[in-house]
Amino acid sequence: MADQLRADYLGCNGHATIKTPTIDALARNGVNFTKAYCQAPVCGPSRMSFYTGRYASSHGASYNNVPLKVSEKTLGDHLRPAGYRVALVGKTHMKADAEGMERLGIDPQSSRGVLVSECGFEPFERDDGLHPDQVVSPDLAYNVYLKEKGYENHNPWHSVANSGIDEKGNLQSGWYMRNSHLAARVSEEHSETAYTTDRAIDFINDAKGQPWCLHLSYIKPHWPYIAPAPYHNMYSEKDVQPVNATCDEKENPHPVVSAFMQHNESVQFSREEARKRVIPAYMGLITQVDDHLARLIEHLKAIGEYENTVIVVTSDHGDYLGDHWLGEKELFHEESARVPLIIHDPRASADASRGSTPDLLAESIDLVPTFVELAGLEPQFHILEGLSLVPFLSEHVKPEQWRKYTVSEVDYAWRGARRTLGLRPDQTKATMITDGRWKYIDYHHFSPQLFDLESDPCEQNDLANEETCQVVCSEMERALLDWYRKRKSRVTVSDASIESNTDNADKRGFLFGYW
Amino acid sequence: MADQLRADYLGCNGHATIKTPTIDALARNGVNFTKAYCQAPVCGPSRMSFYTGRYASSHGASYNNVPLKVSEKTLGDHLRPAGYRVALVGKTHMKADAEGMERLGIDPQSSRGVLVSECGFEPFERDDGLHPDQVVSPDLAYNVYLKEKGYENHNPWHSVANSGIDEKGNLQSGWYMRNSHLAARVSEEHSETAYTTDRAIDFINDAKGQPWCLHLSYIKPHWPYIAPAPYHNMYSEKDVQPVNATCDEKENPHPVVSAFMQHNESVQFSREEARKRVIPAYMGLITQVDDHLARLIEHLKAIGEYENTVIVVTSDHGDYLGDHWLGEKELFHEESARVPLIIHDPRASADASRGSTPDLLAESIDLVPTFVELAGLEPQFHILEGLSLVPFLSEHVKPEQWRKYTVSEVDYAWRGARRTLGLRPDQTKATMITDGRWKYIDYHHFSPQLFDLESDPCEQNDLANEETCQVVCSEMERALLDWYRKRKSRVTVSDASIESNTDNADKRGFLFGYW
Repeated sequence: MADQLRADYLGCNGHATIKTPTIDALARNGVNFTKAYCQAPVCGPSRMSFYTGRYASSHGASYNNVPLKVSEKTLGDHLRPAGYRVALVGKTHMKADAEGMERLGIDPQSSRGVLVSECGFEPFERDDGLHPDQVVSPDLAYNVYLKEKGYENHNPWHSVANSGIDEKGNLQSGWYMRNSHLAARVSEEHSETAYTTDRAIDFINDAKGQPWCLHLSYIKPHWPYIAPAPYHNMYSEKDVQPVNATCDEKENPHPVVSAFMQHNESVQFSREEARKRVIPAYMGLITQVDDHLARLIEHLKAIGEYENTVIVVTSDHGDYLGDHWLGEKELFHEESARVPLIIHDPRASADASRGSTPDLLAESIDLVPTFVELAGLEPQFHILEGLSLVPFLSEHVKPEQWRKYTVSEVDYAWRGARRTLGLRPDQTKATMITDGRWKYIDYHHFSPQLFDLESDPCEQNDLANEETCQVVCSEMERALLDWYRKRKSRVTVSDASIESNTDNADKRGFLFGYW
Repeated sequence: MADQLRADYLGCNGHATIKTPTIDALARNGVNFTKAYCQAPVCGPSRMSFYTGRYASSHGASYNNVPLKVSEKTLGDHLRPAGYRVALVGKTHMKADAEGMERLGIDPQSSRGVLVSECGFEPFERDDGLHPDQVVSPDLAYNVYLKEKGYENHNPWHSVANSGIDEKGNLQSGWYMRNSHLAARVSEEHSETAYTTDRAIDFINDAKGQPWCLHLSYIKPHWPYIAPAPYHNMYSEKDVQPVNATCDEKENPHPVVSAFMQHNESVQFSREEARKRVIPAYMGLITQVDDHLARLIEHLKAIGEYENTVIVVTSDHGDYLGDHWLGEKELFHEESARVPLIIHDPRASADASRGSTPDLLAESIDLVPTFVELAGLEPQFHILEGLSLVPFLSEHVKPEQWRKYTVSEVDYAWRGARRTLGLRPDQTKATMITDGRWKYIDYHHFSPQLFDLESDPCEQNDLANEETCQVVCSEMERALLDWYRKRKSRVTVSDASIESNTDNADKRGFLFGYW
């Protein structure tokens, strides 16, 4: 998993200038789900959906730093019964449910407490990848590593790996977009992406001899947008694609979108100067990840594990990069909500599916049931809200029973937009539902938006107020209601248990209804 | 809380023949919420809503014996911080989340494990009130008590407290409706209702000197329908009210209602003979509860606690008793989903509200926030989905901001109706929403029902297919969608915490969007 990697910033997904040969090869030899959506276009809730296999409002961690309830089972809970070692190297954005653990008497330092605090992963190396000087941990392993390599400073993550030296010889922080063209001071081999890959290789070596599932989770190409040489100037402004933003969009925005346009990142990314400075660095960081994936694959081949390892490439959400006059993510345009999702299965059984791009809606929550099925277990579908993608790995055929809609959610209570709009923290949810053609966005307390992705793939024409589209709006609203109806909240009893306990009260002695 | 006590089987709620002088006096001197609905018309999920302050599909325990997730906070969690002792005497129908406790390493025998297993109550005396010979616990305290009183048998709960001797001198089980006219063999003073009241008095004496909240939870008038003398023949078939069931209802039922009509209890209660046999016993059990409430109140007065104690009378759901050709509960007619809800506040501050019957929709989930506010704490409204009823205790005025709709849910996966209808266990949910006039029932996989409670209070005319009612149906469907939107799943972070953490990433050093 890369962080903030837009689906369309891969060669295999049509980007004109970016170089991602490793990922392209995985797509060519695997299955590329080109209509895959994250369940929340912001790190924390998106990742909790990836890990729990459940929609954001089902797992409840609706935004960054909202603790995941202790009761939510995650990938580790589902895979460990198959004998798997389930580990993390890199970022999760998980916040532990300290209050829940305290209430239940769970010691956060105990083995169970650690799992509950780390999304169910064994934290082989947890590094959430954002370490401002104000809050950096003195024990940050990556900083210890950089200091061992001779980089001296209180916080080399910032001053070395995410800062550069400008033309005048001054130290400049990568936090500031104006510095994105500089080379990070760190040597490439010691950069975060390289280090994270090293640690993944360490884990794979360590785990040899038992089944494992590794969540290799790169912070990049997420901001701070600054890349080490040679990636810092691998791309130039000539490689930057035209912005997807129109005057009409800016002049007649939806109220919620308008409030987001007022955020700092939107104001800055609306400037062409900022796009030309930042996007080449963003692209360099992506190519760097791609190169390290090549290194990882080489390692798997060298130790004889490549033919035995399913590789999935994805991201937690996209990045507006100035499109629609917006920066960051959180709203539901394709640039933000669509994610890469490529699965490479090395086995001969997958040969028939190689290079396919199934024309259907995939979701991040599909990965847990996919992995569980790959591990040979039965997915717990009374808990899991996703579907297994395994059928697509062996054939081109589209299953008859597949989802008709995909849904993504956001809760922007923590953002300035809430204050701009004068809302309370419980009034800021929005839900996107799309059938692949129509994209309908249901804003609590505001009118909806509707886009026709077929005739308007750039999402420039909001049709929600068009007379001719009211039938579509009603249909999408009913689809949304149907989605709500089908949410899975009865998570403590399986369907199979119900089957064997149906209509049997009298057999247990409870004789109601007997004359 | 009584179990299975219909809202209209109280004198104060208009029943023509029943005698409930104690409850009537509480209503006369308190506030009688005559439009109160349970959140699920079946014991387990309804009670979990009473205890969590959350809708059934929020807490997830959708049916009897579905464990309540360990992460759900209950009344005890909310009240103990105010120094309250929060205890149970009687029934909860709670099933502990053994798998969740095992996963989190919580010892069910530990003090925390016991609270998690008992809906957060200190189990001063837990007795779920249903003890068939096949599954009765050898340690059942009520059986130990009966044996101490000289009643001999393996399971005197059944053979003594819930059985009678017929005209021929034969022992007859109260499980069978044909025996409801017999006197239970137990003497009234040793009956379940009397014993449960005794134990409540024991608790109140034990708790003297600190604030407390007691969930006094009678099993009666729930089946087995058999009462001790003199209550067994206090009412006769002359006291039985006319059945609310029409031929048209039986000939043209909704498919789900039709499937419920095929259940044993519906078939039996559709026979006038059964109603005339059972209902007098049901009424006797209610009057018995009322008499013991009088005894409890006398005790409170004797020890000087009456003026210091708020008393709430309610029930977990109703009982069809043959109305609509149905027995038991689970569906959403008034007989099933509406519950008594009377609050008596002894303080002078409540004088202005005495005898009022606020014309608004109350819900079972309102009690947790009500109790929390009465205890002087701030209700945790990021978790609680109910509203505090405290404003109604001090004045007749209707708050301007009150709910416009109330919702109740059922999941009948465990019932024979599911097999009759050919459904999977995940296809059996239904949701009722009413604004007090229109009652709309949304069945998953079936068309809805609509009743006009104003022109058709007996719910005999399903208007869902009437051309003239399609606008109302659409409005109710939109109200349901709005209800779904507002569900509270972000339970680990309070609104206040969001207020103080809004738009402050840069203050913590996360400088995104800075040039």
